[in-house]
Amino acid sequence: MTDARLAELIGRLPNLRLLTEPGDLEHYGRDWTRRWTPAPLAIALPASIDEVQAIIRWANAHHVAIVPSGGRTGLSGGAVAAQGELVLSLERMNRVMAFDAVDRTLTVQSGITLQAVHDASHAHGLIYPVDFAARGSCSIGGNIATNAGGIRVIRYGNTREWIAGLKVIAGNGELLELNRGLIKNSSGYDLRQLMIGSEGTLGVVVEATLRLTDPPPPSQVMLLALPDMDALMQVFAVFREKLSLQAFEFFTDVAQRHVLAHGAQRAIDGDYPYYVVTEFDAIDEQAMEAALAAFEHCVEQGWASDGVIAQSEAQAAALWRLREGITESLAPHRPYKNDISVRIAAVPAFLQEMQELLAREYPHFDVVWFGHIGDGNLHINVLKPDALADAEFISQCEHVTKLLAETLHRHGGSISAEHGIGLVKRAYLESTRSAAEIALMRGVRQVFDPNGVLNPGKLF
Amino acid sequence: MTDARLAELIGRLPNLRLLTEPGDLEHYGRDWTRRWTPAPLAIALPASIDEVQAIIRWANAHHVAIVPSGGRTGLSGGAVAAQGELVLSLERMNRVMAFDAVDRTLTVQSGITLQAVHDASHAHGLIYPVDFAARGSCSIGGNIATNAGGIRVIRYGNTREWIAGLKVIAGNGELLELNRGLIKNSSGYDLRQLMIGSEGTLGVVVEATLRLTDPPPPSQVMLLALPDMDALMQVFAVFREKLSLQAFEFFTDVAQRHVLAHGAQRAIDGDYPYYVVTEFDAIDEQAMEAALAAFEHCVEQGWASDGVIAQSEAQAAALWRLREGITESLAPHRPYKNDISVRIAAVPAFLQEMQELLAREYPHFDVVWFGHIGDGNLHINVLKPDALADAEFISQCEHVTKLLAETLHRHGGSISAEHGIGLVKRAYLESTRSAAEIALMRGVRQVFDPNGVLNPGKLF
Repeated sequence: MTDARLAELIGRLPNLRLLTEPGDLEHYGRDWTRRWTPAPLAIALPASIDEVQAIIRWANAHHVAIVPSGGRTGLSGGAVAAQGELVLSLERMNRVMAFDAVDRTLTVQSGITLQAVHDASHAHGLIYPVDFAARGSCSIGGNIATNAGGIRVIRYGNTREWIAGLKVIAGNGELLELNRGLIKNSSGYDLRQLMIGSEGTLGVVVEATLRLTDPPPPSQVMLLALPDMDALMQVFAVFREKLSLQAFEFFTDVAQRHVLAHGAQRAIDGDYPYYVVTEFDAIDEQAMEAALAAFEHCVEQGWASDGVIAQSEAQAAALWRLREGITESLAPHRPYKNDISVRIAAVPAFLQEMQELLAREYPHFDVVWFGHIGDGNLHINVLKPDALADAEFISQCEHVTKLLAETLHRHGGSISAEHGIGLVKRAYLESTRSAAEIALMRGVRQVFDPNGVLNPGKLF
Repeated sequence: MTDARLAELIGRLPNLRLLTEPGDLEHYGRDWTRRWTPAPLAIALPASIDEVQAIIRWANAHHVAIVPSGGRTGLSGGAVAAQGELVLSLERMNRVMAFDAVDRTLTVQSGITLQAVHDASHAHGLIYPVDFAARGSCSIGGNIATNAGGIRVIRYGNTREWIAGLKVIAGNGELLELNRGLIKNSSGYDLRQLMIGSEGTLGVVVEATLRLTDPPPPSQVMLLALPDMDALMQVFAVFREKLSLQAFEFFTDVAQRHVLAHGAQRAIDGDYPYYVVTEFDAIDEQAMEAALAAFEHCVEQGWASDGVIAQSEAQAAALWRLREGITESLAPHRPYKNDISVRIAAVPAFLQEMQELLAREYPHFDVVWFGHIGDGNLHINVLKPDALADAEFISQCEHVTKLLAETLHRHGGSISAEHGIGLVKRAYLESTRSAAEIALMRGVRQVFDPNGVLNPGKLF
C-alpha cells in the first residue's frame, strides 16, 4: 500500500476498512456487465456517514475519482471501476435505522439489500412495493441511483414514488438532508428528486427514508396466449378497465421456447406469438367473475387465443416462472441486453418496426422480447449465435443499439427505461435527451461536484 | 409605449399582445397577496410556444426581468411584479392539446385552469385527482410551479405525481421537452422533477402532459368531534388502517365558530376542541359497517366524543362546508395566513408548542388552525384584532412567522407545505433548507438562467 494518496486517507481515517488485494479489486471493481476489466485503486468500506464524508473530502483534495458501489447488479456499467478509481462500497452500511408507524416510513442505510427492506417492512405488517429479481443482491442505494422500477410499476410506480427523504454526501463534500420525510414541502428545488436516478454522479446516498404501504389484497394470476401485438394492446385496455392490475407482463413465443427448455412447465398447449402473465386483485367472487368475463370478452373479440387461471399458489408460481425465468434461461447464451421504453400507445408500432429491422439486418440473430406493457417498457435480448466470434457479436450488437436508438428517437422513447446510462449507453444519451438538456445536466453536475470526483465518465 | 426595450420586443414579435394600461398593470402585477404595489413594465400575453421563447430570448438580450404568470391565486407573492418586470401571462395559452386513451394522459397548455382540466378529464371518464378551492382561477402552470397539493393528497399525492411530461422554455431561452410522457425513463437527471416546484425561477412551463386515473369509488363523509390532539392522531391511525381514506381534514373549535357564524350548519351539538371531516371509500354495506365499527371503537377508547355520518349528498356537502368554508369565513378578518408542514408523527408536539407560544406571546390574537392531518400539513390563520392598526398587525405577524420558523426548524418541518416561498417566505427559507442546499439551489438556478431574468428576487 504505497500509494501516497491512500496513505493520506489512512492518516485521516485510521479505522477505515480498505481493501487492496487483487481478488477484492476484481470483485468490487465490476458489476453485472462484463465488458470492462476491473482496475480500481482500492476499495473503501466505510461504516458511518462521517467516514463517507471524509472520503469524499479526501477525494476532492487529491482529485481521486470515486465509484459509489451498492450491490453491483447494474447492467449499464454504472458501478464499474476500470480507471484507477476508489470504489466506495456501502455494503457495511446496511442497517435499518428507524421505523415510524405514524408516518409509515422505514429509514435505512443505503447499503441494505432490497430483500432486507422487504423483510423489515413485513415485520411491521406493511410493504415496500418496489420489487424485481435482483432483490437479494441489489442495494437500496443502487435502486435510488437508477430510479429502479421492476414488476409492480403498473400498480406502485418507480422507486422515486417511495422516497420520503435522503441523506446524501454531495460531490462537494457537504452532507445534505433532503426532504426529511415530509409529504408536502414546497420550499425550493426538490434536490431529492434530482438525486434519484443520478447514477452516483451528484452525491453518494448514505441513508434513505422509504414510504411503506398496506399489503395488496389477495390476487389471482392468469396466463393468456395472444395472436398479435394489436390484440395484446386491446387485452391490456380491457383488463386495465375491468380489473385492478398488479402486473401485466408480456413475452414472445421465442422467450417461451427458451424458458421451457430451461425447465419451466408449459401451461398452454400450442404456440402463439405473444403471451401475457397478469396478476390482479381478487378480493371476492365478484372480482373473479369480472376477470373471467374480461377474458371471455377478449376471446370473443379474437384478441385472446387461450388462457389459464391459476388454481393454486403453486400454479401461480409456475405461471410467473414463465415470465420471471426468462432472464436466467437466456444467460447461457450470453445475450446482448437492452432495456428501453416508449409511451404505452407507441409500443406496437415501435416493436413492429424493430422486429422488421432486426429480421432484415440480422436474420441470423435469435431475438427475445419481453417486458412490462403497462409501463411501455420492453427488454430486448439478442442471443449470440454459436458460430459468431465474441468480438464480432459485440460489434454487431453495438450496431443493434444504434438501430434501437434511432428508432426510439423517432418514437419519442428512452434508451434506458430502468437500468440507467452508465458506461454502456453513454454514446446513446443523445437519442433520448436533447443537446440543451445535456448541457443543463453538465451544468448541474458541475454545481454538485465541482472537482468531478464522482463517477467520472459515467452518464456523460 | 416609449420604452426602447418594449419597442424592440414589438419589432421581434409584431403580433404579440402587449398591455401597458395602468389598470392592466395593476391587475396582472399582483397575486392573492396584497402586500406589494404592482409596478410591472408591461404585460405580455403570448399565444404560442414560439412567442414565449422569443420573449425569454429578448429578456436575456436586454436583461429584462420576467414574472411568469398563471392564475395569480398564489399566497406567497411568487407572481407579484413590483419592480418593473415584464409579466408573462400564459392565460391565452389555455387549450387542451391532446388526450391519449392508451397512456391515459391529457396534454394541455399551461395557462388552462384546473377546473378546465377536471372538465376535460371527466369528458373521457377519467379524473385528474389534484383538487383545491382555487380550481376555477388557478392555472395548471401555477400548480406545477408550486407542486400544489390540496384536499386529496392523502389518496393521490401532490401535483408532482401526475406530471408525465413538460415543455419548458428554460431561463437561457432553450425549449426543453422533459420526459415526453414516459413512465420509465432512467436517462440522466429528471429535469422535469427539478422544474416542478421551482416557482418560475428555472423556466416557463408552456405545456404539460398530465396523467389521469379512474374516478374513485362511491364515498361516504363523516364528521367527528374529538377531545384533544392525541385522540385525533389515534382516530387517524384507526381510520387509515380500517378504511380506504380519500380525505382526513381537521379544524379547531375556533374555526368552527367562524364558519358557523358565516352561515354553515352545525352538525354536532356542543363544543369540542377538534373536529375531523373524513371521506372514505364506501363501495358496499361491508365498507359502511367497517366505518361504523371504527367509529365505535374510537368512542369506546375515548378518542371520539361524537360523530355524524352523512345520510345524503346534501348532508355530505354540508359537512364538507364546515371545513371548506373556513377560509371564506375568515376573509373579512383579513387574516395572516401561513401554510406549514411537519412529519405526521410530529404534528401533536408541534401544534401544542405553537399554541402555547402564541397564547403566551399574543394572547389578544384569535388563532385558527385547520389542515390535512394525513399530510402533516397545517394552515394557521391569525385574525386581526379590530383595535390593532394594520401596520402593527403586519409587524406582529412577521414575528409570528419568525416563531413558526424557529419551531418548525426544531421539529424538522417546512415553512411552506404547498404555497411556495415566493417573496413572503424568502427570509425564512433557511429554517427549512440548509446553507449547503441553498448554495446548490443558487448554482442550479445560475445554470438554467445565467442572466437571472426569471422571477428575480423570488425564492432566494
